[in-house]
Amino acid sequence: MNLTQSLVTGVLFSLCLPAWADRATDEPITPISPAQVSNPELVELGKQLYFDPRLSRSGFISCNSCHNLSMGGTDNLPTSIGDHWQQGPINSPTVLNASMNLAQFWDGRAADLKAQAGGPIENPKEMASNHTLAVEVLRSIPEYRASFKARFGNEAITIDQVTTAIAAFEETLVTPNARFDQWLKGDDDALTEQEQSGYALFKEIGCTACHYGPAIGGKSFQKMGLIEAYQTNNPAQGRAGVTGKDADRFMFKVPTLRNIALTYPYFHDGAYWNLSEAVDVMARLQLGRQLNDDENARIVAFLKTLTGQQPDFKLPILPPSTPETPRPEPFPEN
Amino acid sequence: MNLTQSLVTGVLFSLCLPAWADRATDEPITPISPAQVSNPELVELGKQLYFDPRLSRSGFISCNSCHNLSMGGTDNLPTSIGDHWQQGPINSPTVLNASMNLAQFWDGRAADLKAQAGGPIENPKEMASNHTLAVEVLRSIPEYRASFKARFGNEAITIDQVTTAIAAFEETLVTPNARFDQWLKGDDDALTEQEQSGYALFKEIGCTACHYGPAIGGKSFQKMGLIEAYQTNNPAQGRAGVTGKDADRFMFKVPTLRNIALTYPYFHDGAYWNLSEAVDVMARLQLGRQLNDDENARIVAFLKTLTGQQPDFKLPILPPSTPETPRPEPFPEN
Ligand code: HEC
Ligand code: HEC
Ligand code: HEC
Ligand code: HEC
Ligand SMILES: [Ca+2]
Ligand SMILES: [Ca+2]
Repeated sequence: MNLTQSLVTGVLFSLCLPAWADRATDEPITPISPAQVSNPELVELGKQLYFDPRLSRSGFISCNSCHNLSMGGTDNLPTSIGDHWQQGPINSPTVLNASMNLAQFWDGRAADLKAQAGGPIENPKEMASNHTLAVEVLRSIPEYRASFKARFGNEAITIDQVTTAIAAFEETLVTPNARFDQWLKGDDDALTEQEQSGYALFKEIGCTACHYGPAIGGKSFQKMGLIEAYQTNNPAQGRAGVTGKDADRFMFKVPTLRNIALTYPYFHDGAYWNLSEAVDVMARLQLGRQLNDDENARIVAFLKTLTGQQPDFKLPILPPSTPETPRPEPFPEN
Repeated sequence: MNLTQSLVTGVLFSLCLPAWADRATDEPITPISPAQVSNPELVELGKQLYFDPRLSRSGFISCNSCHNLSMGGTDNLPTSIGDHWQQGPINSPTVLNASMNLAQFWDGRAADLKAQAGGPIENPKEMASNHTLAVEVLRSIPEYRASFKARFGNEAITIDQVTTAIAAFEETLVTPNARFDQWLKGDDDALTEQEQSGYALFKEIGCTACHYGPAIGGKSFQKMGLIEAYQTNNPAQGRAGVTGKDADRFMFKVPTLRNIALTYPYFHDGAYWNLSEAVDVMARLQLGRQLNDDENARIVAFLKTLTGQQPDFKLPILPPSTPETPRPEPFPEN
């Protein structure tokens, strides 16, 4: 869907929806289904890898450091802290429901979760390891060798297997059963009147042009600052960095609004901490519309109903290193 | 018990123990009991605080960063990484079974877990916050206010309540049911012959003089390098830093040997990664004894039976910050 189509669809929905319609199929936003896990052992392995700081050179930083599953799958910082406390270039997006994205990263430069997962391991500003070293670490640990053998039929352990396992775990990181989903599925009492009217307004003014689908985003690239330019010191150029086209400057993947109450600060530069301010920015910059306080509060109330069931699993226990394990290098002198 | 008494006790045990004795009561090492949780809600609150990086100024470092419960309650680094990637002064000891210690820290400068827990929050090299700020952060979060109110009868939130809750959680971090404990409780098949003979040797040569009790350590301060000096670049002076007495130089709290296979690298300077080397150092420096390869392997085999049941709970989910929450300061410019 392009923007005009989406805007039209959004408006049609809000004008034409009969009270008795099956909301779950007729609304521009659809409920999230719980993850279907076909290979639980692979998911378990991926979970261990996700929590394992030995995939970083320092031995200190894991995927969970920047996408903390106790905190909505983000670090709740404007930009991330990477190896040696280096400041990251951009806000860390949530991994929750990331499987629903049309592509990964703010500029969509990775096709899917598997393609994405290899990146941070060898990014010198993030985990600062490399694929050879990361695989060598895992190969030195008998429990990992056994797990990879059980999952992939051999003990070789390749980075391809590592990213397959991490992606399989990430695919389970969906957050069903938000109050909004309960309402979508027909429970009229799941939302207050204010929340319902916030949703109506969200559709009416055109937010659903960009924020639609089960993840309420993640399905298209759109210009940040469509009507009015976004002021930021962050040098990120968005999609143009991938396509090289000037027309793609400031085109970012529309972020999911699922769990938006947990994923502050907002926007690719993490400049806004307050959801109410982020909504105000969106209305003005993307839709040329100044919301009054009541309108803003209604939309914020609606957005807060999008917090779904958070990760619900036991803290993974990691198998210990061995004398053969390459040692972490937390400090230059070590 | 002083050293001589302990040595005698150790020797007596190994000479006099009849085969039919109740090992659980007659051995110098006793099994760990599962935690008795009298106030599960307080423990839950403490668990959240333990995992909450908002107790640090950067918003990035939690207790779990340096005492990672996925990794034996340590960071598996020689010395820790603190705020702004500062190098810590000493190896991070495990929090597992720390409740059994006669005092906390390598030099015992904190009387108990509660007295300890306030330290890292305001240590500029660790979490780099301060008690006022940490409490202000918690007070700004309605779910925390409600939890503290339910646990302590008021919403005030004091650092005393914070450390009470963290300590209550830490008290649950015991690791019962190691294979060695099963054997102690009478299951003869729980240990191999090599492991049993390793334990016999451990007692016979006098390791139990210092490593005894349920935690197999933690019950006394002893000189590191009793017979032969320990070579290290680490400036830590041990107990002398607390008492000011020259006689207390290099007196360190004897560490627990529970889960020793998980808590590498070893010694207060984290200089030894290999358990076999650590055992060799101990035998030479503390007992003036050069173990042969077979003896060393037997003791190491025994020590590896001390890995108990690791933390077994769900990843805690943290309540989100609010616009009132003081913002983290990960980088100077922010
Ligand atoms: C040092 C911080 C850091 C670490 C460590 C890190 N990430 Fe990220 N992650 C980020 C940042 C920042 C981005 C956004 C980068 C961009 O879009 O250019 C990102 C993007 C992502 C995305 C894309 C989400 C989206 O909606 O586009 C996924 C998925 C992801 N990371 C998963 C992982 C996994 C898996 C690991 C571990 C193998 C990991 N991350 C390690 C900071 C980190
Ligand atoms: C024309 C497309 C478009 C429209 C219309 C739009 N958005 Fe967005 N939205 C985006 C894009 C693109 C971003 C990411 C911008 C960035 O980070 O630079 C975004 C980001 C957001 C964020 C921050 C998400 C995060 O995790 O950082 C919120 C909240 C949000 N939008 C809400 C809304 C609301 C509410 C409306 C309607 C008032 C709306 N959006 C309308 C495209 C749109
Ligand atoms: C930046 C790393 C770091 C952080 C963060 C940290 N610790 Fe520690 N912890 C250490 C180090 C290093 C020591 C040993 C210091 C010493 O003995 O002088 C230690 C000692 C301890 C001890 C004593 C254990 C023993 O056997 O003596 C306990 C208990 C403990 N920490 C719990 C915590 C709690 C609870 C928090 C969070 C409030 C925390 N730590 C945060 C690194 C850290
Ligand atoms: C005289 C007291 C004493 C005796 C006897 C003793 N130890 Fe220790 N042990 C200590 C002290 C004190 C430390 C901490 C030293 C340090 O870190 O500087 C320690 C540390 C250790 C460690 C490393 C623990 C860690 O987590 O870093 C191991 C392993 C160990 N001892 C095993 C043994 C074995 C095996 C024997 C017998 C061969 C033994 N010890 C005999 C006092 C003793
Ligand atoms: Ca964010
Ligand atoms: Ca250690």
